[in-house]
Amino acid sequence: MYDVHAVRRDFPILSRTVHGKPLVYLDNGASAQKPRAVIEAVTRAYAEEYANVHRGLHHLSNLATERYESVRARIAAFLGAPSEEEIIFTSGATHGVNLVSYAWLEPRIEAGDEIVLSVMEHHANIVPWHFMRERHGAVLRWVEPEPDGSLDPQKVIDAIGPRTKLVALTHMSNVLGTVVDVARVCAAARERGVATLIDGSQAAVHMKVDVSRIGCDFYVITGHKLYGPTGSGALFARAERLAEMRPFFGGGDMIREVRRDAVSYNDPPHKFEAGTPAIVQMIGLGAAIDYLEGLGMENIAAHEARLRDHARARLGALDWLEVQGDAPGKGAIFSFTMRGPAHAHDISTVLDRKGVAVRAGHHCAQPLMEHLGVPATCRASFGLYNTIEEVDALIEALETCHKLFA
Amino acid sequence: MYDVHAVRRDFPILSRTVHGKPLVYLDNGASAQKPRAVIEAVTRAYAEEYANVHRGLHHLSNLATERYESVRARIAAFLGAPSEEEIIFTSGATHGVNLVSYAWLEPRIEAGDEIVLSVMEHHANIVPWHFMRERHGAVLRWVEPEPDGSLDPQKVIDAIGPRTKLVALTHMSNVLGTVVDVARVCAAARERGVATLIDGSQAAVHMKVDVSRIGCDFYVITGHKLYGPTGSGALFARAERLAEMRPFFGGGDMIREVRRDAVSYNDPPHKFEAGTPAIVQMIGLGAAIDYLEGLGMENIAAHEARLRDHARARLGALDWLEVQGDAPGKGAIFSFTMRGPAHAHDISTVLDRKGVAVRAGHHCAQPLMEHLGVPATCRASFGLYNTIEEVDALIEALETCHKLFA
Repeated sequence: MYDVHAVRRDFPILSRTVHGKPLVYLDNGASAQKPRAVIEAVTRAYAEEYANVHRGLHHLSNLATERYESVRARIAAFLGAPSEEEIIFTSGATHGVNLVSYAWLEPRIEAGDEIVLSVMEHHANIVPWHFMRERHGAVLRWVEPEPDGSLDPQKVIDAIGPRTKLVALTHMSNVLGTVVDVARVCAAARERGVATLIDGSQAAVHMKVDVSRIGCDFYVITGHKLYGPTGSGALFARAERLAEMRPFFGGGDMIREVRRDAVSYNDPPHKFEAGTPAIVQMIGLGAAIDYLEGLGMENIAAHEARLRDHARARLGALDWLEVQGDAPGKGAIFSFTMRGPAHAHDISTVLDRKGVAVRAGHHCAQPLMEHLGVPATCRASFGLYNTIEEVDALIEALETCHKLFA
Repeated sequence: MYDVHAVRRDFPILSRTVHGKPLVYLDNGASAQKPRAVIEAVTRAYAEEYANVHRGLHHLSNLATERYESVRARIAAFLGAPSEEEIIFTSGATHGVNLVSYAWLEPRIEAGDEIVLSVMEHHANIVPWHFMRERHGAVLRWVEPEPDGSLDPQKVIDAIGPRTKLVALTHMSNVLGTVVDVARVCAAARERGVATLIDGSQAAVHMKVDVSRIGCDFYVITGHKLYGPTGSGALFARAERLAEMRPFFGGGDMIREVRRDAVSYNDPPHKFEAGTPAIVQMIGLGAAIDYLEGLGMENIAAHEARLRDHARARLGALDWLEVQGDAPGKGAIFSFTMRGPAHAHDISTVLDRKGVAVRAGHHCAQPLMEHLGVPATCRASFGLYNTIEEVDALIEALETCHKLFA
């Protein structure tokens, strides 16, 4: 049995108050809070076992290297990657997507080549492709979601043409909670010889991910949303694609030999990891993954499904609230606006006074906002430590807000 | 009076032992240990004040944003930058140099254009320029150090020609400790309209840096060497150059507006900071800078000068030791090899058994190793918490090593 109250005790920040009220943290889509195990792993790494990694030879350096490099296999297992050599450490999802863009796509893109993406992508999975449009004349092919917020995989497949170089797709929308059938898209893309990049920033937090089953070429995750440190993340890249990638950051560790007139490069994944890495952040991410696997991703998903069902029913009963997206199997992410004069930012400010932390804005998804016809939404996004009572606290705070603006 | 023993008590790791011996940490050139103030700032940020930054509106997000953004002005003051808008947060020096290369240099380099650099640069300040050679036909113009390890600024200036696009120079060699008169080079380069990038990875740790006085266009620092967290750093870029830079990472926060067919960008520095940043690492770097300024960079420099003088005298007295570089005003960094069969790696292993942590290898400076005619050196690099007694411990361990291999 998943004991959410025991889980909550693992997160120091959850016992604090905001404006004199208990904190109800529903901004997990933006970033998740950290369990004590992660904070302590970070502290221990700095206070007891710190040195730079690789080529150390002294005790602390070897210890830090061991702690740091052991995370690679854990991330590979967490994502179902065939080999830890296919895991590149990054500073987050944005770094991961840009690495794919600069190191794999840019050297092979030509004017008129196409990138297929959905209208509900996060800016991290849009702006790098705009660079390809601005700099190389690439064409962006947009696929729209259905009225319920779902994404028809067949529509994505149909958008793939002879000039398509990449399909770039979210695994779970950070605004609507929609889970996309990326496996079906990736299978079709691979048949056509088209590469696929899946943005797992949200999905990997809420469900068991298996990149081998998905069959994608690239999959990005970000540590800070996974209850890990800021500045951590990873890119899974299939070995065949890794072999096609040129280096991205130049510097220490990614080289084999540097001479005045020549340079040769290290093997992947180190070829793509220049300089002193985010040593302690990756150690912290390892601790976060251990924590998640200790709870069990299936248990987390089941708990969050209960939160989703309760929130869906209660939010749906508020006839002055407009909830965006209700795709089958969606995650516990709810974006909404209020009928009447209250702007999303007003709502979030009122909620904050009640201790309820939600996010207001475009959620780095302006094309989706435009598609939905709203300038901004309020978003309540749930995590593994949220409770049914916190859903009710959200509803109560919304009712106060509604009365205030009615 | 600088009380090094009081300073040492600020660093939890310094009280630990290695192989049953007190830790003598002389690997500061690779990375520095962290004071309690930094570790506690990191812990507090995660355990009490954590949320994603920017556009938050809820209490924790505003608090985290305030803590995070306040670091910008502190770094600007630390580096003598005219404005905090000229400070871009990075994940370290490698990120900073690559950002300059991709965002500023690459759009304007043409085949035959030249980059002037010294033979004693770190790979982070070499490999990005090799990319420009490989990808665009740029030419690297190498300037050699003098026999004593100093770098003649006039030789650098003389290497500047009509095709020079950039002078890329270290402020302090990570192998020899040489301090370079970068101000003189930057003044001459600016007269000729040539941009300058100074690698301050080592210098900013050991002396007061003033980018306004130096007159450089770009200056990079890295947090983990500055007693701050891994995955933190900053790039100073002069406003005129910032205006010339195209975006590097695409993603959230660096945009003004994203549409399906168009994108517009945020103002600097945010234009160059895509996605969720290294929030907690930058807060930790702010704490590190406060700590350094609390001690006083002049006091730190004076303390390290005493260490340098003592180490220089004692190392110089060992006639079986070859010390590389003895430039006037050098920092407390000593690279050496032992006459006889002992390889640098053997030495560092023996020293490690005595609790003395030094680094062996090419120190990410292979062109310099080739110039010196050695495959690798052993490097003892001192920091603000090292003591005269630790210099003596190094000497004693070296003598043991010498006997072992004699």
